Amino acid sequence: MNGVAGLEIARETAPRTGLEPLTALVADELQMVNRLILERMESEVSLIPQMAGHIVAAGGKRLRPVLTLASARLCGYQGQRHLNLAACVEFIHTATLLHDDVVDQSDLRRGLSTANALWGNQPSVLVGDFLFSRAFQLMVADGSLKVLKILSDASAVIAEGEVQQLLISNDTATSEKDYLAVVGAKTAALFSAACRIGAVVGERPEEEEMALESYGRNFGIAFQIIDDLLDFSAHQAELGKTVGDDFREGKITLPVILAFARADEDERRFWRRCLEDTEQTDADLGQAIALMNRHGVLKDTAAYARAYASDARDALAIFPASPVKREMLELIDFCVERAY
Amino acid sequence: MNGVAGLEIARETAPRTGLEPLTALVADELQMVNRLILERMESEVSLIPQMAGHIVAAGGKRLRPVLTLASARLCGYQGQRHLNLAACVEFIHTATLLHDDVVDQSDLRRGLSTANALWGNQPSVLVGDFLFSRAFQLMVADGSLKVLKILSDASAVIAEGEVQQLLISNDTATSEKDYLAVVGAKTAALFSAACRIGAVVGERPEEEEMALESYGRNFGIAFQIIDDLLDFSAHQAELGKTVGDDFREGKITLPVILAFARADEDERRFWRRCLEDTEQTDADLGQAIALMNRHGVLKDTAAYARAYASDARDALAIFPASPVKREMLELIDFCVERAY
Repeated sequence: MNGVAGLEIARETAPRTGLEPLTALVADELQMVNRLILERMESEVSLIPQMAGHIVAAGGKRLRPVLTLASARLCGYQGQRHLNLAACVEFIHTATLLHDDVVDQSDLRRGLSTANALWGNQPSVLVGDFLFSRAFQLMVADGSLKVLKILSDASAVIAEGEVQQLLISNDTATSEKDYLAVVGAKTAALFSAACRIGAVVGERPEEEEMALESYGRNFGIAFQIIDDLLDFSAHQAELGKTVGDDFREGKITLPVILAFARADEDERRFWRRCLEDTEQTDADLGQAIALMNRHGVLKDTAAYARAYASDARDALAIFPASPVKREMLELIDFCVERAY
Repeated sequence: MNGVAGLEIARETAPRTGLEPLTALVADELQMVNRLILERMESEVSLIPQMAGHIVAAGGKRLRPVLTLASARLCGYQGQRHLNLAACVEFIHTATLLHDDVVDQSDLRRGLSTANALWGNQPSVLVGDFLFSRAFQLMVADGSLKVLKILSDASAVIAEGEVQQLLISNDTATSEKDYLAVVGAKTAALFSAACRIGAVVGERPEEEEMALESYGRNFGIAFQIIDDLLDFSAHQAELGKTVGDDFREGKITLPVILAFARADEDERRFWRRCLEDTEQTDADLGQAIALMNRHGVLKDTAAYARAYASDARDALAIFPASPVKREMLELIDFCVERAY
């Protein structure tokens, strides 16, 4: 399926796009997870449920908890433990978002004011800490040391990735390797853990556990590469979505790294001014996209994502055909092809 | 022992002051804990050990890990688990300090530049997250779900207390009850957990575990009350230590609450200007201390601390006499009497 065909298919079968088909398969369970999330963000300190509610409840695709639910289903798990753990995964993600918005000084997320814009940085830091602690309480209540190890390791890796991302920001000398290390840590580690715990609660053999780990990790990397690509997507701009946020902040992502590697001296001066000095005019984003198209950067970035997506797809080969497997594969295709 | 006599004793026996006698008893173990702390803050992302090293290694009394080591000793524990857990407690504390300094916008801690002053708020938030995750990895490596529950509960309570503290800042209508709730959460929860896990690793009966919980909790509250009192201590000022930091920020602490409750209308206007509007002149701290002395506030604040210290002391009654018990009791006396 090429990009344009993928989009056509998505348009033809209106509700069957994006995360929806997979979410529909686990809809009842996801509703229980949403209830758990609301219950477990309660606190006598009323600002905590207020802020957490703003970020957890208001929107969010629940992609990571859906991955936990789907993975458990794929593994034939019949119990209830995955509900608690899916909520826990979403709490870790939400804590990260709260802290990310403080670090990035973001005012908007998914078109809504960020918690730090509404309440300030101070409670965002502290409520993030609370949600993170709450995530650990949920894991401890689950009682599996194996799950605790997977999720505490993932948390440490995420934090390392976030620090590393901060260190490479505005540095046009960043290598693809460094970029992929950041993406593997800050995004793919939680995707991978979210999927893997589905096999752990299902008490499946190591092989299936590692297959889901690989699905989550490779999907996470592909997902983040596409997310970074969309910042420069003319198609996104046509759809009325924001483009250029990362560019304006001087974030170093794969399209930028490829464009810089293929740039002549004039173009390098352009990239350095825009990304290192973050001195930009209104015309610069258009110029950046034009340079990327001239050097085939956007196409090649998508090819990187497709390679990881392909590994993610292969990882599921050991599981027999089932509706949930089909939708887990479809989800990858959708995420990779949404770049067009 | 009254305050002045306490000071005399401290002066006479020079090295036997403060935390030193208790630390000396567990010196070998503390050295191993320090090695573990250095080892476990390692990361390929070099900024992490740099920043963590700055705050963990540079000073710090290691009060909380010493409490874990001492409690384990009191319970006759002979193994090694308490070393790992003492390091974990210090990591949680350090993560909290990093985030506190961001929230308070502090430039100095223990006379040194804070991490956020040196490296900025962004890495302070993220390295705090890393240390917190690392703490959980250390707990998971220990493998006791009971310890995990105690420390994850404490972490959530600490975060709640920090948010609550933010909400009461600059509010002169804060009650003693609210203040004590904040202190119980942000300070006493970790003291209490640090002590309690000494009994857990020692596999002692519930009664001893709860006795150490009570020792830690009451000691923690007394410790924080005295810390808040010292901000207005003329004696501290004579010793060349900083006073008035909390006052300048408009922090609402027990001495302020008592002074405001006993104030006439003129004085209330003074407190509101200084603490709610934080409009202060150089003379205001002196005036605040004078008002506190006039209303017997400093004396009565110390009496509150002594009441909690007394409960902490009583909690250890069930343990037979031993050198470590004697020094755990002495430590309380020192902390309470340092106000003079």
